[in-house]
Amino acid sequence: MARQIYADNSATTQVAERAVAAMARSLREDYGNPSALYDRGTRAKKSVEDARKDVARALGAWSSEIYFTSGGTESDNWALRAAAMAKKGQGRHLIATAVEHRAVIETLRQLESEGFEVTLLAPDREGSVAPEALEKAIRPDTVLISAMLANNVVGTILPVKKLAAVARARKILFHADAVQAVGRVPIDVRDLGVDLLSLSAHKFHGPKGVGALYAKAPFNPPPLIRGGGQERGARSGTENVPGIVGLRESLLEALETMEETARRLALYAERIVEGIARIPGSYLTGSPSRRLPGHLSFVFDGIFHGALLINALNERGISASSGAACSAASKEGSHVLAAMGYSEKASLCALRLSLSRYNAEEDASEIVVAVAACVAELRRKKSFAY
Amino acid sequence: MARQIYADNSATTQVAERAVAAMARSLREDYGNPSALYDRGTRAKKSVEDARKDVARALGAWSSEIYFTSGGTESDNWALRAAAMAKKGQGRHLIATAVEHRAVIETLRQLESEGFEVTLLAPDREGSVAPEALEKAIRPDTVLISAMLANNVVGTILPVKKLAAVARARKILFHADAVQAVGRVPIDVRDLGVDLLSLSAHKFHGPKGVGALYAKAPFNPPPLIRGGGQERGARSGTENVPGIVGLRESLLEALETMEETARRLALYAERIVEGIARIPGSYLTGSPSRRLPGHLSFVFDGIFHGALLINALNERGISASSGAACSAASKEGSHVLAAMGYSEKASLCALRLSLSRYNAEEDASEIVVAVAACVAELRRKKSFAY
Repeated sequence: MARQIYADNSATTQVAERAVAAMARSLREDYGNPSALYDRGTRAKKSVEDARKDVARALGAWSSEIYFTSGGTESDNWALRAAAMAKKGQGRHLIATAVEHRAVIETLRQLESEGFEVTLLAPDREGSVAPEALEKAIRPDTVLISAMLANNVVGTILPVKKLAAVARARKILFHADAVQAVGRVPIDVRDLGVDLLSLSAHKFHGPKGVGALYAKAPFNPPPLIRGGGQERGARSGTENVPGIVGLRESLLEALETMEETARRLALYAERIVEGIARIPGSYLTGSPSRRLPGHLSFVFDGIFHGALLINALNERGISASSGAACSAASKEGSHVLAAMGYSEKASLCALRLSLSRYNAEEDASEIVVAVAACVAELRRKKSFAY
Repeated sequence: MARQIYADNSATTQVAERAVAAMARSLREDYGNPSALYDRGTRAKKSVEDARKDVARALGAWSSEIYFTSGGTESDNWALRAAAMAKKGQGRHLIATAVEHRAVIETLRQLESEGFEVTLLAPDREGSVAPEALEKAIRPDTVLISAMLANNVVGTILPVKKLAAVARARKILFHADAVQAVGRVPIDVRDLGVDLLSLSAHKFHGPKGVGALYAKAPFNPPPLIRGGGQERGARSGTENVPGIVGLRESLLEALETMEETARRLALYAERIVEGIARIPGSYLTGSPSRRLPGHLSFVFDGIFHGALLINALNERGISASSGAACSAASKEGSHVLAAMGYSEKASLCALRLSLSRYNAEEDASEIVVAVAACVAELRRKKSFAY
């Protein structure tokens, strides 16, 4: 078997050993109910509150502004619904970029069916949206704006600080989907000026099934999930203590290694971009400069479907994806590439390569060799593929 | 330090070593995205689907009827909202028992604020609800009935099969909150005749942060959480693979040990009931016979607040709770005991002792000795406590 190269870190990541060890300890020892009065419960409660403090510190927020959830998708759903429900008395117009993750887009579609109006801002060819485009879309009844910090398909980093400033000047709530960004690029919610921010542990070497929502005080997001009143009444359900412990450890390690990782991944990315540029009919998508460290995306002429490329790379031991991870085998192209102006045909044959601190230097050259070979092979087989 | 006795298993449970080991393996090795096309993804996908088959088999359901969630609270919220939304064209009247968990009650309150009407059925003194009481409450516009299989405060097992038969005869959707029951008593969804059923892993020695919803085909519950379209479009968000793996292993072990555990716990429960009966002014709440194995609940004359008793027991190494686990330190008494006809004063001083297969025979007598001593001590200190 060939050496395995995992290059799908924008989908999900290898869990840090430090997080696994902390979770195993929590599962074995701190299984008490955090709401309970006895020692085993208060110990579990302390784990949750210690994690809340560290997440808050990592984002430049207060502990009381952090709520734990089951992941990025729940955080996105909750943030948008909470803002829409809290503000519907003032207006029912919502704005987001057209390159948002489906967790945002589908929630907006649902709100549309409940009487809200939604404007999706078309991105430029690089997948970004300018503050001027946002200004033009704002109406007197606009109550919420949502934009992602970094795009999950092409990796483009959006000018969220500037977009949020436009919202703040008009006292409109601003939500940032930071699922791809937290743990990879520095984030400070006060500096960004956002009111709500979503994050997910499994994107920064934490476990699946846990995430968080930042909601700037004094906004108390009305609950999406109701019941026993955990998370100060905002998110009911017994706290996922081991998951929260895993989130904490993985976030701390991601922050400690962030700078060095970004430096290494910039080098690997440069080699991959240079190498793949030598393949005729290959195109880097997204922004050449403002992109997530180690996140690369391409389209290729003469490839029928990205899935064929993913399968061919898999046979060579490389894990990658085609556009958004959730819809790997979809017959539809990415809505992100389509919004950026790529044809249906082009957006069907996308390749996303996303590295992490666990990738080694030689991975870059091996990826280039494999992609070149697979593309050539698929182009030769073209007549069969159709 | 005194020997530790964990007797709060209706709040949450010690995680089975088999589940911890499987989760650690999943966290370390199967971190791939289940929606991905490469081997590491398809392995993760297989873990999820194997778990789905085992959960389905455990409940007498089809795999396609099982959806994984972040826990019992999400399952309850989702089941009720999905049924209400799907059926609102036919009517807007919802029925539940007044002893339901707050995950059900609070969701119904929210639906009430959205234009639904809610009837809560008063229980009898034992915390149960008769099919005749349900029949009387049904109206032509009733579209959903929800009743729990076993109550979380007093442990009473409700006649869900008979209640569901009343619903089925009128073609009304029936949801059973089985969070306390799954893994402790045998469950067969076809035999029970329910349309929706909620469960939570951490109640049967699985991890926190993961649960499931059974929805009888062909009912496809409209999503509560939207996005990438995981769980066949019904529950978006990257699957909590390690949590699902832990749920599976803990459920299988709970089923394998269920009979023997029930037999042992019946013996321990008998001893505790006999022992506490000797304390003057003590009363067993709930049904003397139809109750969860090892789940006992009492009220005591002359104790100001259950929290005092819980703290006193904690000092003797015993973890227990007062009524519902979520609101241990609450100034309000349990809504369950209040609905059963207990005074505010009585419901404030409840004690819940809930055992599991990890309890030993001597725990029963040690618990009795400790409770007797703590009650006597608190009664002596009464003047200070007030």
